[in-house]
Amino acid sequence: MVAVPGSGAALAEGLLKVAEGMRTAPGCELYVVNRTPDEEDAVWVTEVWSDEAASDAALNRDLGEAGFGEVLPLLAGPPEFIELNPVGGPGLS
Amino acid sequence: MVAVPGSGAALAEGLLKVAEGMRTAPGCELYVVNRTPDEEDAVWVTEVWSDEAASDAALNRDLGEAGFGEVLPLLAGPPEFIELNPVGGPGLS
Repeated sequence: MVAVPGSGAALAEGLLKVAEGMRTAPGCELYVVNRTPDEEDAVWVTEVWSDEAASDAALNRDLGEAGFGEVLPLLAGPPEFIELNPVGGPGLS
Repeated sequence: MVAVPGSGAALAEGLLKVAEGMRTAPGCELYVVNRTPDEEDAVWVTEVWSDEAASDAALNRDLGEAGFGEVLPLLAGPPEFIELNPVGGPGLS
């Protein structure tokens, strides 16, 4: 997702708070906040969920709880989602 | 990366072979081949490296060894790379 100009760091901070709330979310195996050297206002969240239902449940919870409401005003536009289905490879448990 | 039309599955197969070769690459913590329901000819490789030097070394090795040459003819264009620097969150060791 992309922050309004100059707010990339603030967006990352807000998402770290959301991430902390995900520690107890059922089926959440990974919820890491990343920044990229290529775009200072962009923040990527890389998530791994045990199944789609767990992901959907957390996504629905995001908006009401988990502090996601605090980061919404920082966004320059709607977040882009990329759904991936792992096929195989080293490091996949 | 995106395969020529209809070759998404073949590209994923070829990349799984490359992935197997990465099991012994120094600093490789994750090298997972993913497909996406949104785009049947697209394949995403999600990688985690211990540091930039390890990633660079493997990337340079990719083209000569590791079977990457076999997948090149399947690509519709040059691969897109997105470099991410993790900040924090559950699941990050």
